Amino acid sequence: MAMLDGLWQRHQSLLCVGLDPDLQKIPSALKSCEFPVFEFNKALIDATCDLVCAYKPQIAYYAGQGCENQLRMTMDYLRREYPHIPVILDSKRGDIGDTAEMYAREAFEHYKADAVTANPYMGGETLQPFLKNKDKGVFVLCRTSNPGAGEFQNLELQNPAGRKLYEVVAEKAASEWNANGNVGLVVGATNPDELKRVRGLVGNMPLLVPGVGAQGGDLRKILAVGRTSAGTGLVINVSRSVIYASHGHDFADAARKVAEELLRTMRDA
Amino acid sequence: MAMLDGLWQRHQSLLCVGLDPDLQKIPSALKSCEFPVFEFNKALIDATCDLVCAYKPQIAYYAGQGCENQLRMTMDYLRREYPHIPVILDSKRGDIGDTAEMYAREAFEHYKADAVTANPYMGGETLQPFLKNKDKGVFVLCRTSNPGAGEFQNLELQNPAGRKLYEVVAEKAASEWNANGNVGLVVGATNPDELKRVRGLVGNMPLLVPGVGAQGGDLRKILAVGRTSAGTGLVINVSRSVIYASHGHDFADAARKVAEELLRTMRDA
Repeated sequence: MAMLDGLWQRHQSLLCVGLDPDLQKIPSALKSCEFPVFEFNKALIDATCDLVCAYKPQIAYYAGQGCENQLRMTMDYLRREYPHIPVILDSKRGDIGDTAEMYAREAFEHYKADAVTANPYMGGETLQPFLKNKDKGVFVLCRTSNPGAGEFQNLELQNPAGRKLYEVVAEKAASEWNANGNVGLVVGATNPDELKRVRGLVGNMPLLVPGVGAQGGDLRKILAVGRTSAGTGLVINVSRSVIYASHGHDFADAARKVAEELLRTMRDA
Repeated sequence: MAMLDGLWQRHQSLLCVGLDPDLQKIPSALKSCEFPVFEFNKALIDATCDLVCAYKPQIAYYAGQGCENQLRMTMDYLRREYPHIPVILDSKRGDIGDTAEMYAREAFEHYKADAVTANPYMGGETLQPFLKNKDKGVFVLCRTSNPGAGEFQNLELQNPAGRKLYEVVAEKAASEWNANGNVGLVVGATNPDELKRVRGLVGNMPLLVPGVGAQGGDLRKILAVGRTSAGTGLVINVSRSVIYASHGHDFADAARKVAEELLRTMRDA
């Protein structure tokens, strides 16, 4: 995806900061603001804007707390102040054609995201309303980072014998869904073996990798097995350990320090 | 689910009306209203309230058109005027634990839905934030109604040999996820063979069946293979052919006529 190539090089960074604001966890000083979630995001963005290759707001945090308007404000702010930074709306949508069209409008028109995450369970046909937007990216869930991810994703198929479900998703992403060159995959950092396997199946396709930090993924292992020969190809998302690095007034500075440390590890690797 | 048992009996109906309002398709007379989507829904609800076992708003239509507030108004109206009618929020969410908690809040706290739809790709663990709400229903995607649904859902597994992915989902729903008796499955009307198979695997579990009407599912076939021995167990969703039965002033009356006709078929079967 051209949008990522640009920032991977300009910022020499594979770091994506996840904007997942929980009203119970943001600094108490912000809670009296009219738009606490937006102010929290804005400070984090301003503090890390030169260190990231992308931002990834998780829409559930806004919908679950009834503050979709502050997601919209955050997106508008990003588009206005940092139009060069790609924004991946993490919504993991998946539905039949007409409905998926509405979800594509949610992500690309209403929130003006550059990319979205999507769920493949209903079949590649249901990804088309996202994929047909040639200038937008679509990260399809492949092997996720949660403890129970393998329950279905690692089931072995009869034909080809022993092939796992997530491997079939990866193969289809590379061979069938990527006509517009705008497909990526979500592969969790908590399973470096699967990440290595996916990289082997999909060439230089961008991989969105959550699970470093609070979820326990090992950044060095991920870098060793997941990067392309150009040293890029990964969008490594870190949310909690960056955005909640401090719960005090210094939260943005603390977030920057953690982001710098992650970046140092990436550049040293 | 007790909420469904009540209405299956009281209304002698397996019909669920899908509230999927598309601003391009609703009667032009409504378009000058301040809240056209809410007025459209309200008229449809008032016209069909004695004929249904549930309503199912598809959240994508509200999010994609930037009118989540009118979904909230619709839910508030239903809760106030028709508290005995179950409302299934069709959102097909699926995400890791903390995020799924936020999605459960979206459905059950913010929109006050009685039940939700959810995607199993990330594993049963990610369904727990929904399932743990004992008085709420969770319809998990199993075998969906779209043309490409079988691409992954019908893949055959190595162990047990030949078992299909959707069958494993059905088995787990019945044997592992239903401790609170609040699990249902989504099985499309377009595939009566798969519906029959799922019914055989899950006993009396409620099945939410989209795909009758515009998508081409055959109501009589569905009734023949999908009902429990009590003659219930199905929530047969019809959206477009009911809500767009007429595009004129008489849209609500026309919707009622189509709903009555569907109900007649159900009662005759």
